[in-house]
Amino acid sequence: MAGAGFESLERCLEKHLPLADLQEVKRILYGKETRKLDLPSRAFEAASKGDFELQGYAFQAVAEQQRRPRTVRMGLVQNRTPPPRGHPVVKQITALHRRIEAIVEVAAMCGVNIICFQEAWTMPFAFCTREKLPWTEFAESAEDGPTTKFCQELARKHDMVVVSPILERDTEHGDILWNTAMVISNSGAILGKTRKNHIPRVGDFNESTYYMEGNLGHPVFQTQFGRIAVNICYGRHHPLNWLMYSINGAEVIFNPSATIGALSESLWPIEARNAAIANHCFTCAINRVGEEFFPNEFTSGDGKKAHRDFGYFYGSSYVAAPDGSRTPGLSRNRDGLLVTELDLNLCRQVNDIWGFKMTGRYEMYARELAEAVQPSYSPKIVKE
Amino acid sequence: MAGAGFESLERCLEKHLPLADLQEVKRILYGKETRKLDLPSRAFEAASKGDFELQGYAFQAVAEQQRRPRTVRMGLVQNRTPPPRGHPVVKQITALHRRIEAIVEVAAMCGVNIICFQEAWTMPFAFCTREKLPWTEFAESAEDGPTTKFCQELARKHDMVVVSPILERDTEHGDILWNTAMVISNSGAILGKTRKNHIPRVGDFNESTYYMEGNLGHPVFQTQFGRIAVNICYGRHHPLNWLMYSINGAEVIFNPSATIGALSESLWPIEARNAAIANHCFTCAINRVGEEFFPNEFTSGDGKKAHRDFGYFYGSSYVAAPDGSRTPGLSRNRDGLLVTELDLNLCRQVNDIWGFKMTGRYEMYARELAEAVQPSYSPKIVKE
Repeated sequence: MAGAGFESLERCLEKHLPLADLQEVKRILYGKETRKLDLPSRAFEAASKGDFELQGYAFQAVAEQQRRPRTVRMGLVQNRTPPPRGHPVVKQITALHRRIEAIVEVAAMCGVNIICFQEAWTMPFAFCTREKLPWTEFAESAEDGPTTKFCQELARKHDMVVVSPILERDTEHGDILWNTAMVISNSGAILGKTRKNHIPRVGDFNESTYYMEGNLGHPVFQTQFGRIAVNICYGRHHPLNWLMYSINGAEVIFNPSATIGALSESLWPIEARNAAIANHCFTCAINRVGEEFFPNEFTSGDGKKAHRDFGYFYGSSYVAAPDGSRTPGLSRNRDGLLVTELDLNLCRQVNDIWGFKMTGRYEMYARELAEAVQPSYSPKIVKE
Repeated sequence: MAGAGFESLERCLEKHLPLADLQEVKRILYGKETRKLDLPSRAFEAASKGDFELQGYAFQAVAEQQRRPRTVRMGLVQNRTPPPRGHPVVKQITALHRRIEAIVEVAAMCGVNIICFQEAWTMPFAFCTREKLPWTEFAESAEDGPTTKFCQELARKHDMVVVSPILERDTEHGDILWNTAMVISNSGAILGKTRKNHIPRVGDFNESTYYMEGNLGHPVFQTQFGRIAVNICYGRHHPLNWLMYSINGAEVIFNPSATIGALSESLWPIEARNAAIANHCFTCAINRVGEEFFPNEFTSGDGKKAHRDFGYFYGSSYVAAPDGSRTPGLSRNRDGLLVTELDLNLCRQVNDIWGFKMTGRYEMYARELAEAVQPSYSPKIVKE
């Protein structure tokens, strides 16, 4: 089956390939096999009742003498948004709070320590419309908006770090908007915020119409469960963005996203995984699912007729490890929770093996980049 | 079949998947389908007689008003080296010249404009031994060694740009060694040289024992058939290396490599392809094939017994396009020639669509990197 009906690459391969071939194909495609996590049956029951997928995998590291294993569990949530047509903003936000609350309950049953939701998770991805109202009304104060308060309660209740990507209304700086992720400590305190560093101007992703490039640099958050960073959506296309989070010490980089099938699906398995490899860290790629339809029709700058839909978000959320291995993806078309157990010691172990930081020659690149951005720069081209 | 016996991922999928599923799987794994090239039957006959694989694919771009299509054909060569045991150096080099000569004949029949050989193509990948003689005797003068002369003849004869990665002996600077690629114009003139910028210290890749990091920066070569650059082997793990070639204007970046199954196979489809996506250019990933055995036994720093082999090189050479699509790989275990037709106009077209250069914020990264390399740098870590 084509399009949004195709459940997942992994299920298709498992269905058709003989076992020996399947193992070779998986080894080439996914690297060292990830162990299936033994999650509690009541979690599967709750997920089934809530109509979302639950999968669990574990990455392992070698035992060391001077460090204990630093085993933590990540939760990645992908979900559809309720159809916006006719529903007041506050009702839509509340419906999403309820949905996420139910999924986080299951994450707690699975022992998740850090959970991350998808980009702008409290709203439909309405930037395709280029309309301001009512969509900008989904924006909230990052520090004391209802969604941050909601996440603080979740964090306290479940002793869980919560990464909550929202549309931020910055009342202290001209009432402007940002694409922001809040990081809430498992204590319930706000640990800090980070903003989307690279803003797309691609197809229906008219995001530069709504907000600008983030001004917070590349902060890394020291949580009780490891050092984490958040590279929001389009920033996954920029290797330097991943690199700077890694240089600042991130062991896990989340990539909450919203991206559609026709545009990016063949890029999806490549970019976050390449970042895990190149930076000796874990990366967590999260994409929403489902189709979103809007009240007014809009065009897409592609010569086609005006329409009301945004294509389908293809889900397929996954985690990649510093050794290049990865989990299977969540499905392409269902809400889901991916629970992944990581031993963070793997980051330094792979760093010692592959040594990309040591061999990175960053001084040279800092100099070359500084030259290259000068308006007078001449590219180093050799001619006959 | 496992290990070196497994022919290729693509052949396995084609054998087992129903057509509709195969199409979806290929779309997710490989992006927009590449057209099969109609190559002359005498080329296939010559390849069959010479016992090497021949495959051909074409990437297309949209027609523009102000630029004609800039259609060029690339040739990627992967091959095994003759067993070194007991053969004099000069005989081994000559045998490889003859082998490559035959493959280039077929490339010429296929209309190839630019051909690239694998890393250190005139020698076994002997750095695993940590022995100097006889292996350093494979090094040649980049400007007037026999291999460069041989490539100049090939270039003239076939009107073909030749990229020839060799071990270079630099007699003008202390007789030291470099891992170098010569770029020979289709006129037969030497266009220039480029050196491996990042040197591995990984497993049996003891290359830092033999040569240092390249000192030629990131030159791009303006050929009659487009602007090309060469990112040698381990440099593919460093996103900044790809980026600087791209900033200097490369439309096609070759990655001649030598890498083995146990170490890197699951990384192989990711890194060069990510570079094509991130930099709006074509990348050409080339790996040798076969197993190499050495006269004296050596250990691999992995606690295992001394041995004489280097594991198997898994071939799988491929070309990736700026839109994220890619060709299938050559086989994992046979010599091969991959002919790929590119319309270089696709680079700028994808640049205009995705805009990673425009949104790259290189000033910010130049500044952040310059700070990060200071010994006094404190990573930007947020604590509760």
